[in-house]
Amino acid sequence: MKTAATPIDFKQALFSPRAVALVGASGNLQKNTARPMRFMRKHGFAGQIYPINRTQSEIMGEKAYADLAELPGPIDHAFIMVASDLVYPMIEGCAKAGAKVITIYSDGFGETGPAGMAEQNKLISRAKELGVRIIGPNSIGLANLQSGLILSVNAAFEAETLIRGGLSLVSQSGSMMGSLIARAAARGFGFAKSVSVGNESDVTVGEIIDALVDDADTKVILLFLETLRDSPTLAAALERARANHKPVIAYKIGRSEQGDALAQSHTGALAGNDVAVDAFLRAHGVMRVRHLETLFELAPLAERYRGKTHPHPTPARVAVITTTGGGAATVVDNLGLNGMVAVPPPPAFIEHMATRGMNIRETAIIDLTLAATSAQYKDLLEQLLQTDWCDAVLSVVGSSAQFHPELAVKPLIQAEKPTTKALAVFLAPEANASLALLQQAGIAAFRTPESCADALSVFFEAQTEAPPNLPVTPWPAALPRTGLLTEYESGQLFSTLGLTTAQAQRVPLNDLSHTVPYPVVVKISSRDIPHKTEVGGVKVGVHNQEELLASAAAIEKNAAHHAPAAKVDGLLVQAMEAKLLELILGYRNDPLVGPTVLLGAGGIAAEISPDFSLRIAPVSIEQAREMIKEVRITQLVRGFRGLPQADCEILAKTIADFSRLACVREVNVLEAEINPLFVQAEKVIAVDGLVRLA
Amino acid sequence: MKTAATPIDFKQALFSPRAVALVGASGNLQKNTARPMRFMRKHGFAGQIYPINRTQSEIMGEKAYADLAELPGPIDHAFIMVASDLVYPMIEGCAKAGAKVITIYSDGFGETGPAGMAEQNKLISRAKELGVRIIGPNSIGLANLQSGLILSVNAAFEAETLIRGGLSLVSQSGSMMGSLIARAAARGFGFAKSVSVGNESDVTVGEIIDALVDDADTKVILLFLETLRDSPTLAAALERARANHKPVIAYKIGRSEQGDALAQSHTGALAGNDVAVDAFLRAHGVMRVRHLETLFELAPLAERYRGKTHPHPTPARVAVITTTGGGAATVVDNLGLNGMVAVPPPPAFIEHMATRGMNIRETAIIDLTLAATSAQYKDLLEQLLQTDWCDAVLSVVGSSAQFHPELAVKPLIQAEKPTTKALAVFLAPEANASLALLQQAGIAAFRTPESCADALSVFFEAQTEAPPNLPVTPWPAALPRTGLLTEYESGQLFSTLGLTTAQAQRVPLNDLSHTVPYPVVVKISSRDIPHKTEVGGVKVGVHNQEELLASAAAIEKNAAHHAPAAKVDGLLVQAMEAKLLELILGYRNDPLVGPTVLLGAGGIAAEISPDFSLRIAPVSIEQAREMIKEVRITQLVRGFRGLPQADCEILAKTIADFSRLACVREVNVLEAEINPLFVQAEKVIAVDGLVRLA
Repeated sequence: MKTAATPIDFKQALFSPRAVALVGASGNLQKNTARPMRFMRKHGFAGQIYPINRTQSEIMGEKAYADLAELPGPIDHAFIMVASDLVYPMIEGCAKAGAKVITIYSDGFGETGPAGMAEQNKLISRAKELGVRIIGPNSIGLANLQSGLILSVNAAFEAETLIRGGLSLVSQSGSMMGSLIARAAARGFGFAKSVSVGNESDVTVGEIIDALVDDADTKVILLFLETLRDSPTLAAALERARANHKPVIAYKIGRSEQGDALAQSHTGALAGNDVAVDAFLRAHGVMRVRHLETLFELAPLAERYRGKTHPHPTPARVAVITTTGGGAATVVDNLGLNGMVAVPPPPAFIEHMATRGMNIRETAIIDLTLAATSAQYKDLLEQLLQTDWCDAVLSVVGSSAQFHPELAVKPLIQAEKPTTKALAVFLAPEANASLALLQQAGIAAFRTPESCADALSVFFEAQTEAPPNLPVTPWPAALPRTGLLTEYESGQLFSTLGLTTAQAQRVPLNDLSHTVPYPVVVKISSRDIPHKTEVGGVKVGVHNQEELLASAAAIEKNAAHHAPAAKVDGLLVQAMEAKLLELILGYRNDPLVGPTVLLGAGGIAAEISPDFSLRIAPVSIEQAREMIKEVRITQLVRGFRGLPQADCEILAKTIADFSRLACVREVNVLEAEINPLFVQAEKVIAVDGLVRLA
Repeated sequence: MKTAATPIDFKQALFSPRAVALVGASGNLQKNTARPMRFMRKHGFAGQIYPINRTQSEIMGEKAYADLAELPGPIDHAFIMVASDLVYPMIEGCAKAGAKVITIYSDGFGETGPAGMAEQNKLISRAKELGVRIIGPNSIGLANLQSGLILSVNAAFEAETLIRGGLSLVSQSGSMMGSLIARAAARGFGFAKSVSVGNESDVTVGEIIDALVDDADTKVILLFLETLRDSPTLAAALERARANHKPVIAYKIGRSEQGDALAQSHTGALAGNDVAVDAFLRAHGVMRVRHLETLFELAPLAERYRGKTHPHPTPARVAVITTTGGGAATVVDNLGLNGMVAVPPPPAFIEHMATRGMNIRETAIIDLTLAATSAQYKDLLEQLLQTDWCDAVLSVVGSSAQFHPELAVKPLIQAEKPTTKALAVFLAPEANASLALLQQAGIAAFRTPESCADALSVFFEAQTEAPPNLPVTPWPAALPRTGLLTEYESGQLFSTLGLTTAQAQRVPLNDLSHTVPYPVVVKISSRDIPHKTEVGGVKVGVHNQEELLASAAAIEKNAAHHAPAAKVDGLLVQAMEAKLLELILGYRNDPLVGPTVLLGAGGIAAEISPDFSLRIAPVSIEQAREMIKEVRITQLVRGFRGLPQADCEILAKTIADFSRLACVREVNVLEAEINPLFVQAEKVIAVDGLVRLA
């Protein structure tokens, strides 16, 4: 007999269901579908498990039910493992049995093409009617390692014992969920929760992160991502994670063009622009690693020092102590490649250590080979962690890590370690026991020099501040609210944002009188001609009225020839401007991540050697300053070889003001571009611009 | 009583001594100096071991000798472990006892500074007189793992059993020798020889490589490098290795600026320009890896496919098969970052596989999850290895690698694998047993996606052809043989090399008549003024004789003012040239690697965004073509966006001709530069040049 259960919410049903149904569970131990039952028994799930099987009445000694309607009690969560065509009919039964969440292992949906996507949409639509949430389909399942809830067929849970700990993993790849847990477990890392989100047809990564923010057992959230879906939900969840001091670390496919394209073919997701995705993740405080194992190896650093690291200069300074000069050099070389620097101890610190009975030298690597006792090593470490001339301390351990694990890592574990300065460890030889000891002590330890440098750089790059929360930008009443703006209208918009535009007047074709001082540029003005040069619609270096008349006639003729259908609203007469440097300033409402702003080098050479900086919009003045430094060509106006300098504060303000297109609510600005943006010594001038509205 | 031994040579004494002396051996097992004796016993060295100790008469049950003169028989090799000031007195005794090689563990020599260097030089000078070769000082020793000869204190030899195999390691870092052997051993890789070269005061890396080329047990040579010393010997040894089909793989510190500088502080070696070092290693066929573990992980690929891979297009094409889409994506993303591409099977191959009962799709990753039996997997692999549409096959194995090692790797091991197409394997989960099985079968298997991609890219980039062997370039009789050449003389030199220079005449200051067509450029001609513009010694756009006279007067005045001491030999009147693109062509006799040639972008922007290609000189036309493609800006004259194109064959010939400065024997050309080099549609013109001789 069924009894009504106390209602629980989505998050409880997700990770802490009191009873679960395994739809399509098999008693044949060779089959994947037998695994969840077996895994939950092995790992001690204390809740009620109901196997559902149409032909077997008993599974692993447990009564099996042919139909969800026959269950003797309510369920909170169902795991569906039947063939794709049988999934839809099951949804209703699961909901009626009380399930708040259904996790669907079955594949053959959105990932297979349009027919599968239609089937998936039908499924989700019915689930919404029934008030039940869907994980998947095409999810390898989820687990609460703390309670032994294993609604998953992943082989990783075959392990005799699961290491429980503070990591929780959300993965867009089912198989990588298991692979990552196995790799991390071999190093002594324990997990709280793990979720394979499958096709994210209903519940997306963002909602899982949101649930993990509320999960007391989760200390650090790890993401294995192939793409981004539902970025507003994701952004909100990431901001909640930041506010609640739960670090989020991500490994995302897509740094190469082909990797970026793969997400589409592999999962049916929208292929994204990785640069924009990267900016999105950074803006929301995610630490995106470049090496697979750094995903979990970074966790101790992220957890211990979250939000506590002092501001550091660029490059970040790392003090390196070692008993293997060659081993330390492998990491230092990689630190340099990742924008950090190994700093030698300053004379005052060398003197300070001498008074404590230890002689060190002013070298980038403090080599203690044969020269220090364990107590001295510990003392040096503690003193380093208290200094203000380095931003992190790196210890590189040599052969002792392999042959005397306890001895080698003792000073590291015993040293007093303030949470204000990061400590990282690289072990040069094969030294799994030492790695595990360090992990148990919550110290970030790395097995390759590459991942060690990766982790430190990601740690230092992490964005600690939430995005600026700016007021709405009003839309000028005089401007259109859809389609393309002319250059003149675009200039008006930029002016209202606070930008300086080249002095210009729009004049009718039949009256060219104007007050712009010569020489001028004359351009056609038409909403239908976005690329004016290509139709012969621009004349530069017009010196007087006579030339203006001739230019106007030529432009009119060219336009009539190349764009006969275009509605021309006059000519734009614009002052000729000088420049120290030519840049491009762009805005785009990215389909994947939302508003972005881009500063880039102008001219054709920039097309060959990309030189730009991109951020999620809007940006603060401080972020705009960073963007300027990231565009290499701006060095030309920042004191390079005695060349004339520009006021970069004005440029930064221009970028920040322009980025406030992201705060327009009345219309949907799809994209905007100022090309060129002329940088002068004391002014930054928008010379040509284009705005496209939805 | 001593008996004269049959003479043996350096190489035999190095790795196969019949008797060895351990100078400074201790019986105290806590001490490092007790290790070599203990290690050799443990690992079964069958030769004679003589411990030398001034105070102990017996060591580990073996008679110890106070002095080398007391030895009852001759030795071939001595290992010295005494304090630095006691080393020199020991050399003579070792030589008299018959040692052909002395390996010195003792430190405190060249690596400590000028005083230590003086002591080291004294040591080497005496050794040369005695006809004995020195390894070290500051070497952690060497080992012949095949025979159990362990003249080393490295803790790595504590291992109960040493895995013997075809790898031999030469390391400039003592501690990393052990760390690398330990890491490789944990993966089942066996070693033949290992040598820590220490300060390379006498025997350098090159000579060790040369010995390893003759060592039948050595199949692949691994190098851990911090710097290059004695590059001519190294180059010759590397060419012998290439000729004898012994692949050489190197990991070298110095990819970052600080890493490059470290070599100096750490080892007292000359800090090098890593770009030149990289070019040197590539030119001589060395596969330089970027990830530490790739050093040994690449060995099976390098050994199995040495010199046998067919030429491949750029980017190299990799066919990827997997049971874990996410895991494969992690590698494919890294393939893209490393200049390779995952290729989908073409329709003909898909049809071919269908006739064999297997359905695959035209996707960049062939995902076999749940779809293939072990036999099908093996068949697909064999078919792929026979195709011509891919250059390598990558198999990415999922959870089965962890839980069913035998099953997962069986098809890989059993498949017929021609040596014409490379096979690489990445295991997504933690799967040490599977890695070891693959290693035993000689299949390249990787534990991180990063090192897997690193290995494949290095494998494909490997230079298989020996450097061109060109005839000597005669030095023009009319030109000086030392110091700086004027622009006019430089131009004459370039002409004799076959380059086109801008039409020019040198005229005396008192008679400016010339036949160069106007407009012209006028420049001061003086060996004492290499930087003409800086003294106001250049006037461009001179249109007629009148302007020429005025320009000449101004230049003369400027030179008198800014360089009053300069000896002026006239003016250079040069034709004004047009250009599609401005480049720099440079030559340098690099102190570390010898002659190099550089092609780079011209202009100030290139100083901000380096854009150049560097090779060891001389280069072939084919190498020159590669260099052109590597300089990004050359795209502007290679069909970019419909811009006018240049004849890049003429540019390639210009580079190759210019690089033949490396074949000059009569004088020592330190550096030469053509800046700018103007690229026109059908000509490449040296507009300004400078040559500096020793």
